[in-house]
Amino acid sequence: MKIGIIGLGRMGGNIARRLMRNGHETVVYDRSPETVKALAGEGAIGVNSLDDMKAKLDGQAIFWVMLPAGDPTDSTIETLAGMCAAGDIIIDGGNTFYKDDIKRAKHLAKKQIHYVDVGTSGGVWGLERGYCMMVGGEADVVKTLDPILEALAPGLGTIPRTPNRMEQEGEDPRAEKGYIHAGAAGAGHFVKMVHNGIEYGLMQAYAEGFDVLKGKNSESLPEDERYDLNLTDIAEVWRRGSVISSWLLDLCAQQLAKDMDLAQFTGRVADSGEGHWTVEAAMEEAVPAYVLTAALFSRYRSRVEHTYGDKLLSAMRFGFGGHVEMPQ
Amino acid sequence: MKIGIIGLGRMGGNIARRLMRNGHETVVYDRSPETVKALAGEGAIGVNSLDDMKAKLDGQAIFWVMLPAGDPTDSTIETLAGMCAAGDIIIDGGNTFYKDDIKRAKHLAKKQIHYVDVGTSGGVWGLERGYCMMVGGEADVVKTLDPILEALAPGLGTIPRTPNRMEQEGEDPRAEKGYIHAGAAGAGHFVKMVHNGIEYGLMQAYAEGFDVLKGKNSESLPEDERYDLNLTDIAEVWRRGSVISSWLLDLCAQQLAKDMDLAQFTGRVADSGEGHWTVEAAMEEAVPAYVLTAALFSRYRSRVEHTYGDKLLSAMRFGFGGHVEMPQ
Amino acid sequence: MKIGIIGLGRMGGNIARRLMRNGHETVVYDRSPETVKALAGEGAIGVNSLDDMKAKLDGQAIFWVMLPAGDPTDSTIETLAGMCAAGDIIIDGGNTFYKDDIKRAKHLAKKQIHYVDVGTSGGVWGLERGYCMMVGGEADVVKTLDPILEALAPGLGTIPRTPNRMEQEGEDPRAEKGYIHAGAAGAGHFVKMVHNGIEYGLMQAYAEGFDVLKGKNSESLPEDERYDLNLTDIAEVWRRGSVISSWLLDLCAQQLAKDMDLAQFTGRVADSGEGHWTVEAAMEEAVPAYVLTAALFSRYRSRVEHTYGDKLLSAMRFGFGGHVEMPQ
Amino acid sequence: MKIGIIGLGRMGGNIARRLMRNGHETVVYDRSPETVKALAGEGAIGVNSLDDMKAKLDGQAIFWVMLPAGDPTDSTIETLAGMCAAGDIIIDGGNTFYKDDIKRAKHLAKKQIHYVDVGTSGGVWGLERGYCMMVGGEADVVKTLDPILEALAPGLGTIPRTPNRMEQEGEDPRAEKGYIHAGAAGAGHFVKMVHNGIEYGLMQAYAEGFDVLKGKNSESLPEDERYDLNLTDIAEVWRRGSVISSWLLDLCAQQLAKDMDLAQFTGRVADSGEGHWTVEAAMEEAVPAYVLTAALFSRYRSRVEHTYGDKLLSAMRFGFGGHVEMPQ
Repeated sequence: MKIGIIGLGRMGGNIARRLMRNGHETVVYDRSPETVKALAGEGAIGVNSLDDMKAKLDGQAIFWVMLPAGDPTDSTIETLAGMCAAGDIIIDGGNTFYKDDIKRAKHLAKKQIHYVDVGTSGGVWGLERGYCMMVGGEADVVKTLDPILEALAPGLGTIPRTPNRMEQEGEDPRAEKGYIHAGAAGAGHFVKMVHNGIEYGLMQAYAEGFDVLKGKNSESLPEDERYDLNLTDIAEVWRRGSVISSWLLDLCAQQLAKDMDLAQFTGRVADSGEGHWTVEAAMEEAVPAYVLTAALFSRYRSRVEHTYGDKLLSAMRFGFGGHVEMPQ
Repeated sequence: MKIGIIGLGRMGGNIARRLMRNGHETVVYDRSPETVKALAGEGAIGVNSLDDMKAKLDGQAIFWVMLPAGDPTDSTIETLAGMCAAGDIIIDGGNTFYKDDIKRAKHLAKKQIHYVDVGTSGGVWGLERGYCMMVGGEADVVKTLDPILEALAPGLGTIPRTPNRMEQEGEDPRAEKGYIHAGAAGAGHFVKMVHNGIEYGLMQAYAEGFDVLKGKNSESLPEDERYDLNLTDIAEVWRRGSVISSWLLDLCAQQLAKDMDLAQFTGRVADSGEGHWTVEAAMEEAVPAYVLTAALFSRYRSRVEHTYGDKLLSAMRFGFGGHVEMPQ
Repeated sequence: MKIGIIGLGRMGGNIARRLMRNGHETVVYDRSPETVKALAGEGAIGVNSLDDMKAKLDGQAIFWVMLPAGDPTDSTIETLAGMCAAGDIIIDGGNTFYKDDIKRAKHLAKKQIHYVDVGTSGGVWGLERGYCMMVGGEADVVKTLDPILEALAPGLGTIPRTPNRMEQEGEDPRAEKGYIHAGAAGAGHFVKMVHNGIEYGLMQAYAEGFDVLKGKNSESLPEDERYDLNLTDIAEVWRRGSVISSWLLDLCAQQLAKDMDLAQFTGRVADSGEGHWTVEAAMEEAVPAYVLTAALFSRYRSRVEHTYGDKLLSAMRFGFGGHVEMPQ
Repeated sequence: MKIGIIGLGRMGGNIARRLMRNGHETVVYDRSPETVKALAGEGAIGVNSLDDMKAKLDGQAIFWVMLPAGDPTDSTIETLAGMCAAGDIIIDGGNTFYKDDIKRAKHLAKKQIHYVDVGTSGGVWGLERGYCMMVGGEADVVKTLDPILEALAPGLGTIPRTPNRMEQEGEDPRAEKGYIHAGAAGAGHFVKMVHNGIEYGLMQAYAEGFDVLKGKNSESLPEDERYDLNLTDIAEVWRRGSVISSWLLDLCAQQLAKDMDLAQFTGRVADSGEGHWTVEAAMEEAVPAYVLTAALFSRYRSRVEHTYGDKLLSAMRFGFGGHVEMPQ
């Protein structure tokens, strides 16, 4: 198939590459002409404007927008909407908030433009491993996109198959290939959002566990209860046959193998919105999400030296007991 | 009554003073002779050894040990045990772990020495306000101590009485005066321990709330959603008719009235053991104590700049997405 | 002063009464004519329509809307906006989300109508104790309302004054009387919202503490470490001189004095929006609010028998260890 | 090598089998003679007493005790200690608390008996996949056991190797084969304990995420924001290329493929001690372990219908606002 790709950053560029490797034609655009040129050198059809892209996508045009959520994606889709014909398909492969997808799909439907949201996991590894994709939109439109999605997805690969698949009603055979049609517009980004919420929780569980291992050599402990543990080895051994083996643990093992002290990292941890939105969704549904929320909050906390609240605790302690603070 | 008081620090000294004000005789000892002398100048009988104290406490000797938990208290009680006669009473007014009380009481019972544990709340304010006390030990021994406990307690005062008191079986009329016989040995310290666990939770609730108020002026927020709130006024107004008025809030208001920026505090917050023990008790009982635990953990977190776990999060993020850390 | 009050439920009715007691004239409306009639019998001017109310409020009309947040308040304010003259004042005394206040104030400002939001704490006790109020809006408009707010507020009363008040710049002398001008439109409801967020945290801290006390008699504990504690007495004694005394603890003591088993309560706990919004605000500011959030989640959890997540835990355990579930 | 195995339950039996498959000789004992007989039928040397086992283990005897932690393990090791010669090795492969290991090792060292603790992960899958093992004890004794441990471990298998392994000082080449010598006595069980603590956190992260997905079809949500998601497909697709793929997710996918409603599970989730101990260790080290603790508490909460604390919340709400509880 032929598809236009807008935004050739780390994700967009590799998506174009993986599609080309699988025999699809890509028309590519980026605000940086050099980036376009580079990808054209790898076989893509480079264009310097969205108008030009539309012109090169004859028939039912398919656009894959791979830009940061918010303004860049919004304004691009608005521009595309202005030039699209009825029946064209706009795909948002970024990290848009699913409620914005719902509004957008309604808005575009008035012009008979189809909107598809694709939540994409895989990061820098996707080019080789394939991308895990969660897709929202109209069923028949998603079906139209199957060749493209299948090319991007990891496929069955060597991962052992889950017994009992497809015995219940309503299961999607595409899941085993690495993508699903999750539901109506927004459903793809919603599932991806929860995926990231879980990711925060998993990461924090490992982080806290390794913290407990690391702290076991603390001088505040009785001497015969201290261990100077090799965290690099522990991460490695847990990859092999343990209940907590995972891809995130593989990453821990890789980083620890480079430097057990993780000295290149300061420990100020960013969060990208999905964790926050997952907690909002939990609250809207009245779902107790203690772990996902605590994981998010730990990132907030990692980015400040002291909170004002901590000072207020000290102030109260000073007030009721004349306690002097701990030395810095 | 006549009572020996061992340990004349902030708490012990004021306990002696409050007892003297209420007509009791105190025999006082501290490892610092100057401290003994000072209190003798206020009317106490000063002694320079525990033997001397025992000698001055004719008849059924009553000892109030007011020392740091652990070694100082342990060794002092061991020494007292060696000199006590059957029927003598040893009171531990410190912050001993209740399981140690249970062991101690059994040990002393073999020598027919009575052991009473008194959990004491009130801090530096107790001399004037009176001490809130939770007492563990044998019922008749606690009864013997009533004159002393009543003198230390706040009494009915001006605090409005709770309707419907004493209508259920088993209530203790002493509660309204500010002390209770909570149960067998250890029960006093156990109740005091949970009291402190709750205290951590309450303090953290205020701390987080004021953090949210403080953060409302952050430049990361849309300009028309920012407020530059006066936290001093807010603490004050909440003291007056609101649902969250409390003594801890009074302390917040006092500290904020001195300096809304709390600039003298660094925000490294100590914890004194009871919070930890409360969480242990919760785990032994399989009670979910999310809030009490999170309050404790926030104190731990306040004392380190970055955790190793935070660095591991950064390392994983670097691993899967090539994310660069946030600038410091 | 003369003021129109719309909505004569538990809160609105008592606000009218307290204003009348303090010499203000009230024009009252409720969708139930009986309620209007009843309050008219207590000295209010009853009206049967908002038009009639406007007519009876000669000069600069002041409306106090005391209705449930959302549609009832929205539509009433929209109606009032249609009939107000430039310079009139509309007060929302309910629990509106502060971002809605901001929008409303802008909208009304176009018609030169002043909008004031009043966050009100005090519940059913406000008539006698006075209401603690946090006010948002234009400074001079709030000043105009001072006589009314002062009448509603508790006033200095017998609560000890905080030392060092008014020594810092920008403090509001009204705070000691029980109300503050917190800032521009929405600031009143924002501060009240955080107040409720804190309230959830405080309540949960007490709840968990009493849970730990209650569980101390569990048969799963070693026999000599069990205590059968009298929770009624413990709540009472903590009211008297302890660090955790508070108005919420007074309520605990009152309820426990009626029935230590709390048998009339099932333990399904509602939440009213402010807790949720406080967590949202915390997330927008990147403030770690572990305790406030855990308190909210505990309410969610109290309202379901089992979560789907719990079942998934059981399913995983079955999967990796063949563990059979615990008997119900 | 020749080794005695005591306790032929799910774990012990399969450990014997896997050793035999790899050419080791096993002398096996269980309190059930039938179980001994069955395993003897598979090639093991069955014995009916520990004395008999000792007799059959000529030379340096090696005992692998695979019994429930606590009394069964304690008394068995005590019995073995009585019959062991200097130089013999006792291995505890169960879930003993590491502080008990430390005491035991000291105790046995007096008799020159070597003690080794092996934390074993792998559950019912270990026979085929191999066991991931974390070993504590003296370095040369663990070296002696290498043939046995290597036979039980998964080995390199098909799991991709971690780059940069063995470039830092002190790494253990055995980690890649699936076991490590973690440190002195107790270190094996300590690392396994933290492993389980992490496991709780990971499981709860998935549980909460799936709860949020499940709740997205709730009738309390606006109709156009609801999705009826297929959780079976979502678990499957996340196994394929996503950042959160893991062995625990594989188990979720397997269980969901059988029944998306998980109707056979009630959701009462047990905990086995390690989660509790991990939190204790975190507290001893002052490590904030929000997520691991919340995961543990969620299990506690899953096992009661309502907490007393929930009722107290309702009681307070009734007290301050006259709020009536939610209907059941």
